[in-house]
Amino acid sequence: MDISVVNALPYEDFVSIFGNVVEKCPLITAAVWTRRPFTSLNALEAAINEFIDALPESGKEGILRCHPDLAGKHLHSGALTRESQEEQTRVGMDALSSAEASQMARLNAEYKGRFGFPFVICARMNDKVTILRELSERCRNERAAERARGIAEVKKICRLRLQGLTLSDATNKL
Amino acid sequence: MDISVVNALPYEDFVSIFGNVVEKCPLITAAVWTRRPFTSLNALEAAINEFIDALPESGKEGILRCHPDLAGKHLHSGALTRESQEEQTRVGMDALSSAEASQMARLNAEYKGRFGFPFVICARMNDKVTILRELSERCRNERAAERARGIAEVKKICRLRLQGLTLSDATNKL
Repeated sequence: MDISVVNALPYEDFVSIFGNVVEKCPLITAAVWTRRPFTSLNALEAAINEFIDALPESGKEGILRCHPDLAGKHLHSGALTRESQEEQTRVGMDALSSAEASQMARLNAEYKGRFGFPFVICARMNDKVTILRELSERCRNERAAERARGIAEVKKICRLRLQGLTLSDATNKL
Repeated sequence: MDISVVNALPYEDFVSIFGNVVEKCPLITAAVWTRRPFTSLNALEAAINEFIDALPESGKEGILRCHPDLAGKHLHSGALTRESQEEQTRVGMDALSSAEASQMARLNAEYKGRFGFPFVICARMNDKVTILRELSERCRNERAAERARGIAEVKKICRLRLQGLTLSDATNKL
């Protein structure tokens, strides 16, 4: 999908296609439509990142809280968004050993209890082993550092979702 | 539901219950969880309103763009959120005469073409006649005035949804 096609989309189609590049936050996609035309896909990504960065800290935590747990109950009940389901399955979160699943559940609970938001990591840039190690290590961070780290991961996820949608010519979905 | 029950909810339950008090914007609900404990339902509502007011103008437009058209295609295809479906049906948007439906479609298109966001009105505080009249009149407003008016309507909708959820003791849904 060429950027000129993106720029020509009515807001309803734009939000329909790109509304979940930040998980369950179509508000963000819908907001940046105001800033079109974009000179490139990178410019669209930059507009999203700038919108996120301008939110108050509570808003950044709100973004993180819209994310599901990795290998959590929603993966097994099929209640994830299509994007999350694909990303978690690709990295093997649906096929953990019993010991890995227990460790993941325990660390997810510890992380959420400590920070009040879930552990967010770009699954497609990691594997099962690095995800478990990162989760374990990041549980020991300070809250502000971890909020910033989570948002940095949100941006990586957003970039890959944007690339996937534009490469696959998602206008076919309309 | 007593406010003490609301304050004791983990963020996942809080977002699960209140995530759609602003249509398709769970980010907002998830963000204000940071500000608990709330002294009352009014304090929770005030926190939501303050979060909305602090957004840039593009963010307010983003909220409006997350709303469906009144009597639009999603009402007829069953693709509305449960809350929107109830609110639109209660005011008779699913049972317009052919002439009313044509007028609504024409004015919705005119409104969106002019402003780049949809016409938002608190359906439960209006009837079919006042909705059509308001839509016709508001098409002639300036963009900034109409953005502010739309957000004022979003807050009315939010208030009624919050009241409905707390009166019905939505913790039973968990």
